[in-house]
Amino acid sequence: MRINVPAGFLFSAASAGIKVSGHPDLAYAEAPGGATAAALFTCNRLAAAPVQVGRDYLKHSSGRVYAVVVNSGNANCATGKAGRRTCEQVCKAVARQLKISPESVFPSSTGIIGVPLPAEKIVSALPDLLTARGDGEEAVRRFSTAIMTTDTRPKLASCTLETRGATASVLGIAKGAGMIAPNMATMLVYVFTDIQGESRDLRNALQAACDVSFNCISVDHDTSTNDTLLLLASGKSGVRLPAARAQFGEALTFVCRSLAEQIVSDGEGVQHVAHLHIEGARHHEEAMVVAKTIASSMLVKTALTGADPNWGRILAAIGRCSANVDPNRVNIYIGPQQVCRNGESRKFDEKAAHRYLSQPSYDIRIQLGRGKAGVEFLTTDLTAEYVRINAEYST
Amino acid sequence: MRINVPAGFLFSAASAGIKVSGHPDLAYAEAPGGATAAALFTCNRLAAAPVQVGRDYLKHSSGRVYAVVVNSGNANCATGKAGRRTCEQVCKAVARQLKISPESVFPSSTGIIGVPLPAEKIVSALPDLLTARGDGEEAVRRFSTAIMTTDTRPKLASCTLETRGATASVLGIAKGAGMIAPNMATMLVYVFTDIQGESRDLRNALQAACDVSFNCISVDHDTSTNDTLLLLASGKSGVRLPAARAQFGEALTFVCRSLAEQIVSDGEGVQHVAHLHIEGARHHEEAMVVAKTIASSMLVKTALTGADPNWGRILAAIGRCSANVDPNRVNIYIGPQQVCRNGESRKFDEKAAHRYLSQPSYDIRIQLGRGKAGVEFLTTDLTAEYVRINAEYST
Repeated sequence: MRINVPAGFLFSAASAGIKVSGHPDLAYAEAPGGATAAALFTCNRLAAAPVQVGRDYLKHSSGRVYAVVVNSGNANCATGKAGRRTCEQVCKAVARQLKISPESVFPSSTGIIGVPLPAEKIVSALPDLLTARGDGEEAVRRFSTAIMTTDTRPKLASCTLETRGATASVLGIAKGAGMIAPNMATMLVYVFTDIQGESRDLRNALQAACDVSFNCISVDHDTSTNDTLLLLASGKSGVRLPAARAQFGEALTFVCRSLAEQIVSDGEGVQHVAHLHIEGARHHEEAMVVAKTIASSMLVKTALTGADPNWGRILAAIGRCSANVDPNRVNIYIGPQQVCRNGESRKFDEKAAHRYLSQPSYDIRIQLGRGKAGVEFLTTDLTAEYVRINAEYST
Repeated sequence: MRINVPAGFLFSAASAGIKVSGHPDLAYAEAPGGATAAALFTCNRLAAAPVQVGRDYLKHSSGRVYAVVVNSGNANCATGKAGRRTCEQVCKAVARQLKISPESVFPSSTGIIGVPLPAEKIVSALPDLLTARGDGEEAVRRFSTAIMTTDTRPKLASCTLETRGATASVLGIAKGAGMIAPNMATMLVYVFTDIQGESRDLRNALQAACDVSFNCISVDHDTSTNDTLLLLASGKSGVRLPAARAQFGEALTFVCRSLAEQIVSDGEGVQHVAHLHIEGARHHEEAMVVAKTIASSMLVKTALTGADPNWGRILAAIGRCSANVDPNRVNIYIGPQQVCRNGESRKFDEKAAHRYLSQPSYDIRIQLGRGKAGVEFLTTDLTAEYVRINAEYST
C-alpha cells in the first residue's frame, strides 16, 4: 500500500530498551515549522500522565505543536505525581534539543499500567532519534512500528484531497489491539495533514470523524487510560480548511474509518470482524446502546468465534439492553439471509449461514422497527487466543 | 453433604429425549397439599414463554402452586405465540394428571433459544415422572440433576430453623453455569420450605435474600431470558412466618448465598472465583456499579485467569465506570497485601500475590474513600474453556 506523506513533517523511531524484547519502543514526529493541533482524549477518569500533561500543554501552547514523542511498553499510568514529572522530563529533554518550549512537545505512552516510566532510557535515546529523522515513507513506517504493543501489524491510512488545483494529504498512524471500546480505546492515533486550519475547525472535523470511526468499534469493551487522537496540520499544502471543509472532512473520515477497521481486525486474538448494522432506531443514542450491548456480549462474541448463527443470543442481548426495544418487533439478517422475524425464528439455511460467518469479515443487520436512526458498529469474536494474550502473568 | 427435605413436597425426574445426550432433562416437584408461592423473574425484555406463562399463572392462582415442571435442553424462548401454547399444553397435561387447574402448575425451561419446544416428548414422559415421585433425598438429587445444562455438578443447599420448639427446613436447588449476571442469570432456582407464610411476606423475604446473593454474581455479564427464582412454602412444619421472620430470612439468605456461590464456582470454564469487597462507597448503588464494572471487565477477568496481580486493570475499570469515583483516592488489597494506595502503585510481594491468586477462591478489597456503603460481589476468571464451551457450533 502506497502512503501519501503530507509536507512539513519528519518522522523517526528508536529502541530505548523500555520493551524487554528490544523492539523499537520510541516514536517521534516533528513539524519543523510548527503545526496547529486538535486532540481528543480518553474519558476514563484514570487518565495517564501523558494524557494529563498533553492536555495541559495544548492549552498553554494554544494548540501549537512542534514535536510528538511516543513510547510503547509502559503506559505511565497510575504513577501519580512522579509519573507526571517523568513525562514532563521527557518533554523538556526534547524541547532542549529543538530549542523550543516544553509545552510545544506532545507526549504519549502505551503499555503496562502502574509501573514507573524509565525517563532516562528515553532521554538517552533522543540523540539517535533525532539523527534518524526523515520525511519519507520509510520513516513513517518506522514510526508506525515503534508505537505497537500487542499489535501484530502497523496501521496506516492516507488520502489526498484537491481543491482549486492545490493538493493536500491526510496521513493517519494508529496502534491498538486490546482495551478497545467505544469512546476510544487503548488506542493512539496520530493524523498528519498539510492543510491549513485553525485549531477549532480542526477539532470539529476531528470529532465528527471520530464519532463514526473510533467511537463505533469494540474489541473487549474496556476503555483505556491512555487513548489519544491527535491531529496536526502543518499548513504547507496551501489548501485552506474553510474552503475545503467538505473534502477535508471526507478525507479525515476515510482515514479514521480505515484505521478503526484495521485496529479491530488486529484486535487481540481476533479471527472475525462483524459489521453490525443497527437500523430503525428512534435516535442515534438508541442505536448506539443496542450496538454496544450486542458488541460486548460475551455470548454473542463466542458465537461469532464458532461461526454459529445463534441469533437468539443477539436477541437476548437486545432484550437486556437499557434501550426500551421490544424484541417482538426485531428482525435479524446474517448476510443475505433473514434469520429472525418479529422476534421469532425464521427458517434459514444454517449451513450457508455458518459458511458466511466463517469469513474474516461480514455483515449482520438488525432492524428495531422503531424509527429511522442507525449506526454501523464493528465488533469481533472472542477467542481462546484473546484469553491467552491477556492472561499471561505480566508483573 | 446431607440435605434437609422440607415436609409437604415430592420430587421426581425423567429423560424425555429433549437433550440429544439422553441425559435426564425433565424435573418435577409437587406439593400435594398445595404451596404458597413467591417468584422473581428475569428483567430481560425477551422473556421466555415459561416466564410469561408462569407469571400469568401465579396471578390467576393467587400464588397457589401444586406442581413445578422444568425441562432442560430447550429454553422455549423467542418461539412466539406457538411457544406459549406449547408451554400451556405441558401445564395442562400435568394438571389433567393431578386433577388441578393448569394455573396451579409452574413451568420452567432452560437451554437453547429460538428452537420450538417438543411438548409431546414432555407429555409422553409424564406418567413415568409421576410414578417416580419421592419425598426423600434421592428424589431431590434426581431433580437437581435433571435441570442441569452446561453445569458440571448439581447445586443444592439446605438449612433448618427452630422457633418455639418447632423446626422448619429450607431447601434450595439451582442450575446455572453461563449467561450469569446481576439481576439474575440463566439461572433456575427452586426453594422449598415447610414454613407457613403469606405470599407477600414470602416475596419480601425472597427479594431481600436475592439482592445479596443472585444479584451479586457475574460470570459473563449476560442476563438470561429464562431466569426464575421460585419459593414454595408448604406450611407443613407448623412454624409460622410472622413469628419466625428473622430466622427464616437468615435461613433463606444462607441457602441463596450458598447456591449463588455454587453457581459461580461452576461457571462455564471457571477456575477462580474472586470475592470483590467494595468498601467506602457513597451508597449501595454506587458500590454495585463499581463492582459490576470490575466484575465484567474482560481485562480484569483474564488477569484473574493468569493469577496476575495486575491491579492497574481494576483501577482502569473503576476509572471508566459510570460512578463518579476519583481513582486517586482508591486503595486496592489482594488478600492481605495492599497493592495500590491512593491510585498509585505500592511495593508488594508480587510472587506472594501470584500464589494467593492461584487459589480457587480469594478476596480482593477495593476502598473508594467516599462513604460507608459496600457490597460483596462474586466474579470469575475468563478462560479458554469458556470460549470453547460457548463457541461450539450449536445450530
